[in-house]
Amino acid sequence: MFCILKKMPLRNVKLTIHYDGSGFHGWQSQPDARTVQAEVTEAIEKLCGVTVKVNGSSRTDAGVHALGQVANIRIDTPVPTANLAGALTELLPDTIAVVDAVDVDDSFDAIRDTKSKLYRYTIFTGSVRPVLNINQCWHRPGVLDIDGMSQTTGLLVGKKDFKSFAAAADNRQSSVRTIIRCDVESDGDWIYVFVSADGFLYNMVRNIVGTLVEVGRGRWRPEKITEILQAKDRNSAGPIAPAGGLCLMKIDF
Amino acid sequence: MFCILKKMPLRNVKLTIHYDGSGFHGWQSQPDARTVQAEVTEAIEKLCGVTVKVNGSSRTDAGVHALGQVANIRIDTPVPTANLAGALTELLPDTIAVVDAVDVDDSFDAIRDTKSKLYRYTIFTGSVRPVLNINQCWHRPGVLDIDGMSQTTGLLVGKKDFKSFAAAADNRQSSVRTIIRCDVESDGDWIYVFVSADGFLYNMVRNIVGTLVEVGRGRWRPEKITEILQAKDRNSAGPIAPAGGLCLMKIDF
Repeated sequence: MFCILKKMPLRNVKLTIHYDGSGFHGWQSQPDARTVQAEVTEAIEKLCGVTVKVNGSSRTDAGVHALGQVANIRIDTPVPTANLAGALTELLPDTIAVVDAVDVDDSFDAIRDTKSKLYRYTIFTGSVRPVLNINQCWHRPGVLDIDGMSQTTGLLVGKKDFKSFAAAADNRQSSVRTIIRCDVESDGDWIYVFVSADGFLYNMVRNIVGTLVEVGRGRWRPEKITEILQAKDRNSAGPIAPAGGLCLMKIDF
Repeated sequence: MFCILKKMPLRNVKLTIHYDGSGFHGWQSQPDARTVQAEVTEAIEKLCGVTVKVNGSSRTDAGVHALGQVANIRIDTPVPTANLAGALTELLPDTIAVVDAVDVDDSFDAIRDTKSKLYRYTIFTGSVRPVLNINQCWHRPGVLDIDGMSQTTGLLVGKKDFKSFAAAADNRQSSVRTIIRCDVESDGDWIYVFVSADGFLYNMVRNIVGTLVEVGRGRWRPEKITEILQAKDRNSAGPIAPAGGLCLMKIDF
């Protein structure tokens, strides 16, 4: 006697996730720490009654936010995909939301298929501590030279070796990346730095922002950035900007 | 032998305080709970080395914010008043800031001399949970009729008996107050209700907002508000709006 069990193909579902990273030790699950991946995994397992791997595109650090994280999950559940986002959001802490869920081709992988990511970094330059937004910005009182910062961002766009902007701990083989967009916007005392690239080295955006602020406060001229890039040495760049100002905005596939 | 100790007159200092109320059990000190008053008191005592009573104008509830709380303190400290705000803010948690400190007449009392207070209530009507602002608004997805709500607010302005909008627990002798301003502003999916009055009953703004939303969603017509006021009964009004949407904006003396 024998029996053939035909395994049903699992659905591959792409989730778009928003979160305030303040209360979490980053995206990635780790023992004894509250992480976004662990919360989302738990919600799915509770809703669908199956174990699941939540394959997130970006491993955001502790304190970093997302208004456009993307993950894919392979599941076999009677819950229709159209109902997933709302049902999961109900089960999640109120600083996390699954804002979209769609069925995708079986081959889709949120990490492997990422073409580019867009980050936004927020700086508040006013003198009064912005208590209602303190975990979503870098409070750095004092005027910054937006024009100088904008000139600097222009020099960062393109395919370059960004080793000077990578955390020392980052030991990936190549530190060459392509920055597609890098610009500075301001609205009163608020400054927003947008950086989009085909990939990021560890702490790259925060190190770029810390360096831009050195230009903004007049310590360095914009052309200094070229020298920093050429040095290929983390010590040549500015200090790292705090995590709370950083937000993952969009991932393109 | 005898000796006369001439007591130095204490300085009377008026403080303006901002805070995100999310992490606090309201303004007022209480045993075994983290409160804003306790944090401010501790910071002053640490900085000045004296015990102090922080006399706050408004006893905001748990979860309620302030961008204009006012308190006065009577202190004898070598710290110049001009340095107090900055030095205290450094000592406070980053969701509290003392934004201004000025010497005032010895007779000034932040509670007794309050002439009016302005509150702002924030509603978010978009469908996607606003994770970065979730503790600073009432997330209530679905379109609200702003015109209807505005008509309703117009009927609340003036000297009236607001008993229907007071928490049942509020047993102050008179429930007559004068609403000076009550209006609704909107900006995309964000709605702001501003209410200014010479005094507020317990939970009055949140009960007004809960009632306005009943009009906004079409359950009641604006004229219903007159009927509610006449009833002088909490049960006749709408449900209470959540604490997180409320922010104390300004106190006039």
